[in-house]
Order: sequence, then C-alpha cells, then structure tokens
Amino acid sequence: MFNPEFSIFNDWMFGKLSDLLSGVNPPSGSEPILLTIGEPKTPPPKIVKETFNKYYKDWRRYTPSNGTRFFRDSVSEYISRRYPKASEFFDIDDEITPVPGTRAPLFQIGLLLKNGSKNKDISLVTNPFYHAWRAGAIAANEKIIWMDANKETNWLPQPKNIDSEILERSSIMYVASPSNPHGSCASIDWLIQTINICRKNDILLCVDECYADIYRQDYNPPTGTVEALKEIGEGSNGVIIFNSLSKRSSAAGLRAGFIAGDKKVISKYRKLTANGGVAISEPQLRVAAALYKDDEHVRKNRQFYDKNFLLSEKILGFKKPQGGFFNFIPVNDDLIATKHLWENHGVKVMPGRFMANSNNNYNPGENYLRIALVNDENITENGLNKISKGLQELK
Amino acid sequence: MFNPEFSIFNDWMFGKLSDLLSGVNPPSGSEPILLTIGEPKTPPPKIVKETFNKYYKDWRRYTPSNGTRFFRDSVSEYISRRYPKASEFFDIDDEITPVPGTRAPLFQIGLLLKNGSKNKDISLVTNPFYHAWRAGAIAANEKIIWMDANKETNWLPQPKNIDSEILERSSIMYVASPSNPHGSCASIDWLIQTINICRKNDILLCVDECYADIYRQDYNPPTGTVEALKEIGEGSNGVIIFNSLSKRSSAAGLRAGFIAGDKKVISKYRKLTANGGVAISEPQLRVAAALYKDDEHVRKNRQFYDKNFLLSEKILGFKKPQGGFFNFIPVNDDLIATKHLWENHGVKVMPGRFMANSNNNYNPGENYLRIALVNDENITENGLNKISKGLQELK
Repeated sequence: MFNPEFSIFNDWMFGKLSDLLSGVNPPSGSEPILLTIGEPKTPPPKIVKETFNKYYKDWRRYTPSNGTRFFRDSVSEYISRRYPKASEFFDIDDEITPVPGTRAPLFQIGLLLKNGSKNKDISLVTNPFYHAWRAGAIAANEKIIWMDANKETNWLPQPKNIDSEILERSSIMYVASPSNPHGSCASIDWLIQTINICRKNDILLCVDECYADIYRQDYNPPTGTVEALKEIGEGSNGVIIFNSLSKRSSAAGLRAGFIAGDKKVISKYRKLTANGGVAISEPQLRVAAALYKDDEHVRKNRQFYDKNFLLSEKILGFKKPQGGFFNFIPVNDDLIATKHLWENHGVKVMPGRFMANSNNNYNPGENYLRIALVNDENITENGLNKISKGLQELK
Repeated sequence: MFNPEFSIFNDWMFGKLSDLLSGVNPPSGSEPILLTIGEPKTPPPKIVKETFNKYYKDWRRYTPSNGTRFFRDSVSEYISRRYPKASEFFDIDDEITPVPGTRAPLFQIGLLLKNGSKNKDISLVTNPFYHAWRAGAIAANEKIIWMDANKETNWLPQPKNIDSEILERSSIMYVASPSNPHGSCASIDWLIQTINICRKNDILLCVDECYADIYRQDYNPPTGTVEALKEIGEGSNGVIIFNSLSKRSSAAGLRAGFIAGDKKVISKYRKLTANGGVAISEPQLRVAAALYKDDEHVRKNRQFYDKNFLLSEKILGFKKPQGGFFNFIPVNDDLIATKHLWENHGVKVMPGRFMANSNNNYNPGENYLRIALVNDENITENGLNKISKGLQELK
C-alpha cells in the first residue's frame, strides 16, 4: 500500500538507540542525564514574546509562500552583517524565501528534482548525515551515494575525489558547514571547489548552514557559502543555502528560517509550498525578522556553549570543534560505551555509527560518541565527569 | 531539471484570475472589495494570546511528530462533543495526530501511497477541487480521474457511478464535506456508501472536513465521517479525516489541525513528518488544544457568517448553503461577469471554472461565481449590492 522509497525511514538513529538500550536500566538514585538530543535548553529571547503579542491578531491570516518583504529584508540585512564581503548578494524578492525550519525544505527540494533530468539518477549525501538530507536524497533519486567525512577529511566530504561518471549522473548534493555532528567548518577554498564541481556537473548543491552562528568565539565565524558565491562572481545559480533560527535563537519550536540561492529553485519551492506545504504565519515571520535583526542574543547563546566546551576540553581532553554544539569524540567501541554509560552512570549519548550509513563496510561514525553540550553548566559538568569516569573504566 | 509532475501547479486559480483581470482596472474613487479569498476576517479568540504567553518558553523545544497526549486528548474530547454518536471512536495515541494545517498532509498522504500498489495508477479527485487534493493526487499516481460534482449531485461526487475497472485501479480518493466551494453536506448514507466503495476497492478515502464547524445555525450540523465509520462498525481502516482550526477558529496563520483515522497511515505520516515535514511546536499545540476545547468562540464565528448569508439571500436571492462561508452562484458567463464586476463595480470574485478541471469538455464550475462572505456586514452588504447591480446589467 505504501511508497517503498520511504521504508528507508525505518532506519532511524533514535529508534536504534532505543533498541540498543532496551532492557538496560540506568542506576537508581540519581536523575539520568540525557545528552542525546541537540535541543537548545536556553530560553528564547524576550523579543519573541513581545513580538508575538504585538502581532497577535494576524494569526487569523494566510500568508503567501514567499512570506513578506519585511521578513526577506531582515534576512538580507542579516546576511550583510554576518558576511560583509557578500553584502546584499541575494535578490531580496527572488532569491530569499522563508521556510518552516530546514527539515521540510531539505526534503522538498529533493522532491522538486525527481525525474527532472534524463541520465541523472544519483543523490550525493554527506556521511554522517542528518536524516532530512537522506529524505531529500531518496525523494530526488532512487540511488544515494554516500560521501564519507571523517577525521582525515576534517569531517567534510571530498567531492573532488568522486568519480566523474558518478558526478555526471548526480542531480543533487547535500553538505553542511559547520558539519553535523562534528562542527568542523569548510574553508572558502573547499566551498568554491565544491560549488564549481556541482556547477560543472549540473548538480544542485544544498548547503545546510543551520549552525552558521553557533561557533566558538575565540575562533573565526564560519565562512558562508554566500562568500564563496560572491568570490566566484557568477550569481547563485545551482546553489541553495539553508538557514534556521532553531539553533541561532534557541527557537526550535518556532519553525522559522530561510533558504537563499538559485531563483529557479526558490520559485518551484514556493509553488510546492502553495500547493502542499506549510507557509509561515505573519506573527512567526515578525518574530523571525526580529530575531534575524538582533545579534546580541546570539552572542549570549554562543557564550553559553563556549563555557560548556571549556568544561569539555578540561574534563574529556578533546579539542573543541569550531562550530556546532556537539562533542564528537572517539572511543574504542561506541555501542559498548553507550550501554556502559547508560547502565553504570545514567548518561545517555548517541553512538556515532547510528548517525552514518555503512559504505563498503566502512561506517565513518563508528566508534565515536555524539554528546550534546546544550544543558546548563552544572548538568554538563556532571554529565561530562560521569562520561570521563565511564570511558576510563572501559580502557 | 525539475520534477515534471509538478508542472500541474502552473495551472492555479489565482494566477488565472490575475491573467483574466490583467489590464482591467476597477473604477477610481472607491475602495475595491475583494471577495476572492476564503480568509477569516474575524480576529482569533483571546485564548490564543493568553495561551501563547503562558507557554512562551516552550518555543525553544522540538516536538515529536505525534504531538502531545494533551493535544490528542483535546481532539478526542472535541470529536466526542461534536459527534456524540461517535464518542471516543478513535484511539487517542494511534489514530489521531496533529498537522500544520491540512494543506501539507493532504499532499503528503498522497505521496505516502506512491508506487505502493501494483496495478493501481489512478487518483480520484472531487471536481471542483482544492489545489492540495490535486497535489496529493498527482504525488500518488500519474493519472487523475476527476469526479464531477454539480447542482444535480448536490455538489458531491458520485463514487457509485464510477466504473468498477477505474475503482480497482485507484489508490486514493479525495472528497470534502461541507463541499468546497459550495458548502453542501454529505448525508450519512452518502458517507457510508463512499466508505464501503473505497474499502471494497482498497482505496484510501481522504475526507476534507475543514469546514465541519462552519454551518448555518438554523440547519443541522454537518454529519461527520466518524459517524459513518461508527455506524459501519469496522474501525477506521482505509479512511483519513482532515480537520483544521483555520476556519473553525479564524486562525489560518496558526497552521494547526489534526488528521484522524487509519493507524497505518497515521504511523507512516508521522515518519514522513519526522524525516522531512513540519512538526507543530508546544505553544501551538497548547493553543490548538485550548481552541478544540472551546465551542463558544466557534458559535460566535457561525453567527458572524449567518448574518452574511441572510444578507446574501436577501440581496442576491440564492438559497444559502448548509456549510462553508462561500456563495457559489450561477451566472450566464463567469468570465464576463468577473471582468464586469471588477471593471465597473470594483468587486473581485472568483470564476467557478478556475476552481475546476475540464473533464470531457465539461467544467462543473463553469458559469458559477465564488463569493467569499468573510468580511464584516458593511463590506459584505456593499459588495453584494454591487454584485446584484452588476449581474442585473448583464442580463
């Protein structure tokens, strides 16, 4: 009865974790510490509440799929502040559009390409992956080719090493910077090279930048894909950038962000939204605009994560990543470590292999643990100390 | 480059209307009256604001694709109040799930069925249609067969008249009660018959009930599909009901509602949402629950529309429909009438033929006008008087 493509969704990291820990109980007497989910724990800034109250009456309204000029202006201003070299790069009406978080458009833009090009039957996806990339990839093409990213490649895929025959057969490529889950950031050279490879092969490049504003403040801010586009100087053709407020503004529930880039894709995406997608309401667009106009609350968020990463360097001894809010650290066996930490220390973490696909018997996430550093200092310190102790016990 | 299926979206009623009226200007000197869009003009009730403020901090959170038990409970209670004969019919955890409005799930549930059954290649869609039904239909199957609805059939399609060979080849059927745009309501016999035909032929029946609570208060409330399911007594297998707060609570921007029915479909829908859809935030679920728990604001909304339909009966002389908030009235030529009303009276209405597909050279919406009665009494009265005058001039 059901679409056979979607059976891939049965393979799901939280489902696998639940199976792994089935029958394994944390020690009684202390509250378990859940470091599995990348959900911000800091409250959203006050402007969220104020702006919602101001525009409360507009909940009655439908909004068009391109949002409002007011919202798109706020995005353009944000891009100009965040990436001064690429100031005002995008056409505000045709190359920027609001999205209800990035999960849905990551999927839907894959769907937009389905059967769109003869001789193209492959989607290229960074591995480890975010499950919405996989959903978009399988919506676009029957075949996914996984682009492994690991320590040797700074946790970024290497499109330059992909066979030219594979590239020619590909219609879409999903990458992220800062990377998920490691938080390493692409250089401008890597971005330029990747854009050029995709353009040469008529591949739509989807760059997930949902962690663009979550970086360690003693490092440089991550380079943006828009800066690479500006440097190349040939417009936004063939590239879509995904940005979200979920992490930037600790507003995962707000389901607001934007995509920017190729205007042909933006136009098709808007039509799909108008026919079968989710538009963002006027109050949400107002709140999202207020958040994109403000950088101070984001600086405070970064400060919050900076403290946690300082703790983590001190307690676990691994160098902090440039971006994101996860630790992704090597262990002897990620499944054994995950069970041990839950059973003996009441700390839940995510085995790296559940976040990646096995590719020719190689899983780039295997024997890594993903640890979310999103809780307050006390919980984080307590959790990290328990992890440190647990990992010592396994040595 | 793009999915050829979605080229169907280029055929779009508002685009056609814009083309029709291109170069046609309304008279200067008076404000144009737009009666084209079914957007509630009454403000959402106060509980919306209060509830958002109460749960403001939860904007930071992700919510699971099945929402919360609190929300699902409120839906179950609503169904029990609204359809007492079918009280507590659905399993609260497995057969009810939140949706971000009905447009996205109407599309996505079609997508869930794609290539799901050998020998099935047809989607059945009520004509005139809502564009999200068409989007879901084309996502499910390459071929759409239009089920005409017109005055002779009380604006409901007649599945019993469809060839058995067509029914066997169909995997999904879209119907609505109250119907769109006419607002006529299905009887329990029609619903039972339609469910039985779909079950016999292994067709997923999608019933759009987004106008379920918008009816004339001197008529009976529209019968619900859940009442027919209860009467048949074989559970919810093969049926999905779509309900939304957009009209019920004048909260189109809230993007909240529910689907209820076949638990296999609900389960697949949740997986698609988790991988590439839009979950509804905790604050929105709280507001939606508060709205489903309250009937008084809905009664006031109905009163508002009742007054407009009284005016319309008086001014235009057409019998009011049982449900919905549109007038759908016959004219000599809907294109000529639409242009005439805009050019000479500054009133914008929707030609019926733009809402329907031509089926063997017959378009069931042709020579009808859709007039939205969503504005306040003054605007509505003024608009209807102008329409009356304009139509007289064309006689």
